[in-house]
Amino acid sequence: MKIIDCHGHYTTAPAALQKFRDAQIAGLKDGIDLPLSARTPIGDDQIRESLENAQLKLQRARGTDLTIFSPRASAMAHHVGNETTSRRWTETCNDLIHRVCGLYPDNFVGVCQLPQSPGVAPAQSAAELERCVLQLGFVGCNLNPDPSGGHWTSPPLTDRHWYPLYEKMVELDVPAMVHVSSSCNPNFHATGAHYINADTTAFMQFLTADLFKDFPTLRFIIPHGGGAVPFHWGRYRGLAQDLKRPPLKESLLKNVFFDTCVYHLPGIELLLKVIPIENILFGSEMVGAVRGIDPETGDYFDDTKRYLDALPIPAEDRYKIFEGNARRVYPRLAAR
Amino acid sequence: MKIIDCHGHYTTAPAALQKFRDAQIAGLKDGIDLPLSARTPIGDDQIRESLENAQLKLQRARGTDLTIFSPRASAMAHHVGNETTSRRWTETCNDLIHRVCGLYPDNFVGVCQLPQSPGVAPAQSAAELERCVLQLGFVGCNLNPDPSGGHWTSPPLTDRHWYPLYEKMVELDVPAMVHVSSSCNPNFHATGAHYINADTTAFMQFLTADLFKDFPTLRFIIPHGGGAVPFHWGRYRGLAQDLKRPPLKESLLKNVFFDTCVYHLPGIELLLKVIPIENILFGSEMVGAVRGIDPETGDYFDDTKRYLDALPIPAEDRYKIFEGNARRVYPRLAAR
Repeated sequence: MKIIDCHGHYTTAPAALQKFRDAQIAGLKDGIDLPLSARTPIGDDQIRESLENAQLKLQRARGTDLTIFSPRASAMAHHVGNETTSRRWTETCNDLIHRVCGLYPDNFVGVCQLPQSPGVAPAQSAAELERCVLQLGFVGCNLNPDPSGGHWTSPPLTDRHWYPLYEKMVELDVPAMVHVSSSCNPNFHATGAHYINADTTAFMQFLTADLFKDFPTLRFIIPHGGGAVPFHWGRYRGLAQDLKRPPLKESLLKNVFFDTCVYHLPGIELLLKVIPIENILFGSEMVGAVRGIDPETGDYFDDTKRYLDALPIPAEDRYKIFEGNARRVYPRLAAR
Repeated sequence: MKIIDCHGHYTTAPAALQKFRDAQIAGLKDGIDLPLSARTPIGDDQIRESLENAQLKLQRARGTDLTIFSPRASAMAHHVGNETTSRRWTETCNDLIHRVCGLYPDNFVGVCQLPQSPGVAPAQSAAELERCVLQLGFVGCNLNPDPSGGHWTSPPLTDRHWYPLYEKMVELDVPAMVHVSSSCNPNFHATGAHYINADTTAFMQFLTADLFKDFPTLRFIIPHGGGAVPFHWGRYRGLAQDLKRPPLKESLLKNVFFDTCVYHLPGIELLLKVIPIENILFGSEMVGAVRGIDPETGDYFDDTKRYLDALPIPAEDRYKIFEGNARRVYPRLAAR
């Protein structure tokens, strides 16, 4: 069995990446769209160094094999600048992920950021998705349900606004992880509130609409264990019933999946108790939101494999969580 | 032992209440602020009837004694109209709760809605809080962290913006339940997303600031089991540590409490496993967000007492959850 971690971000990228981003943001004041040629070249050694003591070290220490790897989520910041800003930043980040995957093809496979921008039609992200999948060998994308960064000005994910992008996802047979970025609304701490709220919000949007009737093969991963959803699984089953919606198993669970980015044993235990095994994909969000060691256990909070290892899970279910479900949700993994 | 349900709303109020509200909203178009004298009188019998076959019937059936009772949360809709609209609607709703408590003093004790309005200083809510506590005998209030109804335009709850209201809460020794109302943002389903998100958001706001250093006796109940917080308790402990904040037990748990409005056994089990017993107050949100019967158990989803009764909780802890903690958090209960 291969241990596939479906949720990793390149949070440790070489400083030259942030330098380009800083220059891009500084240029916005003067109305300058920094061209891609302004990127400082990043050497292979810099990339290796950025990973060897972080993701790769942790993969080895924790016994995981392959990370489905995407640009740093909090840095996507689709609300910064305009469509061109977002496109150039997105291409830069995706190209770097491609280089990571080229250097370590056994350890990483790419998932792309999309060039979303507030008020810009999601259809405009289809070309970059296609480039990443067909030319760079990526297997999925991160879709931001709130490109405004905490103001929630876009239509819900079930609105036809998003359909052209979904058509491209279906055509390419790739899933999206629903993943917001940083928040420019002071109410929402990014990793402590905005991320989790977006997960919960997306699930409820899916529950109340017929999106998967229109796209029976469209697939979403809701990260961070599905936000609040498993903890409130009774509430969601009850709301579906009150709203005369079909049972969740029928209406959502062929299309919606949850990762295991829940950073304590009781949470993982609950996740496995209420969500069908077929819908759970191993993920750690490593190196990510929480970087410390839990004083109660002596282990990293985000070493989610430990929690799974501590539970009496039958071998066939372990296979599903660690590999099988990921292969089903990301069929392009097979092409590697 | 008395079973105190800390979270009940008057969702079944006589139709005359909604009639007043409809007229008030209709008047807004013509710039008319409907005066309180436009309220249709509601007879005691109408009030009795509205409760006998709902909250009172369920209290008896479930074996609960006293409900801490407030106006329907989704109808507060602070985003509708202006400050006067909100004040008149709030007074109307609070007065009706007062009548309920007068008719059934053994069954209900009041918690008030506040006359919040987007862009209006929370200080403006202090007078209504004082009226409700000192004149009507209420024991707490519901505080809406987002009077804009899903646009989140107010400062975080830890901002000094809110301090004048907190001073009044401390002076009166009453807690607030952090409770949003309906959402006018199509992204957020009210009871399935907006409520839960607000709970999670408020907790993270409290985690990142020193509010309780400034107000050591200020107390908040986060409803719906604390939103996503218990499910992600490891994440919050880890974030506090990464952010160099004190451990949650020290910084928050003298001031922040969770109700048990979680509608399935595994959720309640998790809540009790990770949150200290001292911080859990029995609540059911009855008659509220989910009204149906769970086909998996044959019981009402929101009969949260059943989940607690099914767990092996020591008698002293049961007392805390069902009565003791409520008496500590709502000290004015003793005056009844």
